[in-house]
Amino acid sequence: MRLDVAFLPEEAGTLRGRVAVVVDVLRATTSLLTILERGCAEVLIAPTVEAARRFAHAHPDLLLAGEERGRAPAGFDFGNSPVAFARAELEGRRMVFSTTNGTRAIRLAREASTVLLGCLRNCSAVARGGLAAAGGEEEVCVVCAGREGRFSLDDAYTAGALVDALLAEAGGNPLVLTDAALAAQALHRSTADAAALFRRTGAGRNVMEIGLSEDLDYCAQRDTSALVPEVGDRVRVAG
Amino acid sequence: MRLDVAFLPEEAGTLRGRVAVVVDVLRATTSLLTILERGCAEVLIAPTVEAARRFAHAHPDLLLAGEERGRAPAGFDFGNSPVAFARAELEGRRMVFSTTNGTRAIRLAREASTVLLGCLRNCSAVARGGLAAAGGEEEVCVVCAGREGRFSLDDAYTAGALVDALLAEAGGNPLVLTDAALAAQALHRSTADAAALFRRTGAGRNVMEIGLSEDLDYCAQRDTSALVPEVGDRVRVAG
Repeated sequence: MRLDVAFLPEEAGTLRGRVAVVVDVLRATTSLLTILERGCAEVLIAPTVEAARRFAHAHPDLLLAGEERGRAPAGFDFGNSPVAFARAELEGRRMVFSTTNGTRAIRLAREASTVLLGCLRNCSAVARGGLAAAGGEEEVCVVCAGREGRFSLDDAYTAGALVDALLAEAGGNPLVLTDAALAAQALHRSTADAAALFRRTGAGRNVMEIGLSEDLDYCAQRDTSALVPEVGDRVRVAG
Repeated sequence: MRLDVAFLPEEAGTLRGRVAVVVDVLRATTSLLTILERGCAEVLIAPTVEAARRFAHAHPDLLLAGEERGRAPAGFDFGNSPVAFARAELEGRRMVFSTTNGTRAIRLAREASTVLLGCLRNCSAVARGGLAAAGGEEEVCVVCAGREGRFSLDDAYTAGALVDALLAEAGGNPLVLTDAALAAQALHRSTADAAALFRRTGAGRNVMEIGLSEDLDYCAQRDTSALVPEVGDRVRVAG
């Protein structure tokens, strides 16, 4: 089975017939995992902040969450802070969600046969889920959201953590790694201190500037969750 | 001064007012360095193999070199093997050159204020040349050619070697590294054995398949040359 990493969604090529794991570790996929852990019944991924607003206007029971330049847009119930979601009462609620990079990557990946949402907090569980979905036949591609069309080190590092988790879960079954998968793996093996690495990245510095460095420590925690968010299940692409 | 790496030419954004170092270590920029070291008077970078053929037809004194899928196209005087160029008699000759990824990257980078050609064999010299061209003001961007639109580990590793060489040459002057520059640096620091790394990459495996693994050892040698090829000097973009 081939194991690939796309450092930007556009690099993935066609995902038809492949299993995609979308990664936007700072912070969309970490937030979405937390939202589902808090019992949210359904999350609708909107293409833009404006579309999310229109959706919530038409369905007043929906919670409205997301960000523009890191912050909650005007009138939103939540921003994109996983730490804030971890403290929120979301049981049984429905939510519409839109962020700059993460929701775009999820929407671009939706032609894949299975789309899972990965981050460090559910790394091993997503690796197991990805292998099960691929059934030893299909290719698994880890799709990094990147940051405004540019390479994002935090996503690439997390992709490498997923590569190592996939290798560990695959046991004796051989996985063929592409150049990008080998590079992500080397990045992951370059340091065990994800929180320190996150603080050096563009996305991490932005999170610190808006006073939410607690989010970085939260996003850096490994394997705290066995939940594997899948698009089409409690996460749906809207519009 | 900002130091950036583009893992694909398209990721660089506009290069106007920036210094670009183009890297296609397996094998175009290593070949071009060798061609100039052998005394070639001028190398014209053609957009396609077909354009190179037409050029050479119109100017019968031109040597014709390049590759398609690693091999010399029909009727070409040379392929893209730096080891073959190192043994060739090129003194005072003119050449037209076209490869799949490297020449495309050079052509895309030509709007930069200065375009240098980098590889491991002239790594430190190019770092010095890049800093001198930037004059402490302009941004330096290392532009990886990639491989048919995909991330290439050999180029990313070499970009990291250039990042470390630029940091060493900059001395006390602070360089601000982007996410991609930090990632390239981590890849470079993950191993000192470039030849072994090259053998694991897609481009390297292709070179081995066509029986030219000697090229990989040649491309992996560090700082054997003080020559800094610059587009507009003995290397010109044609057509």
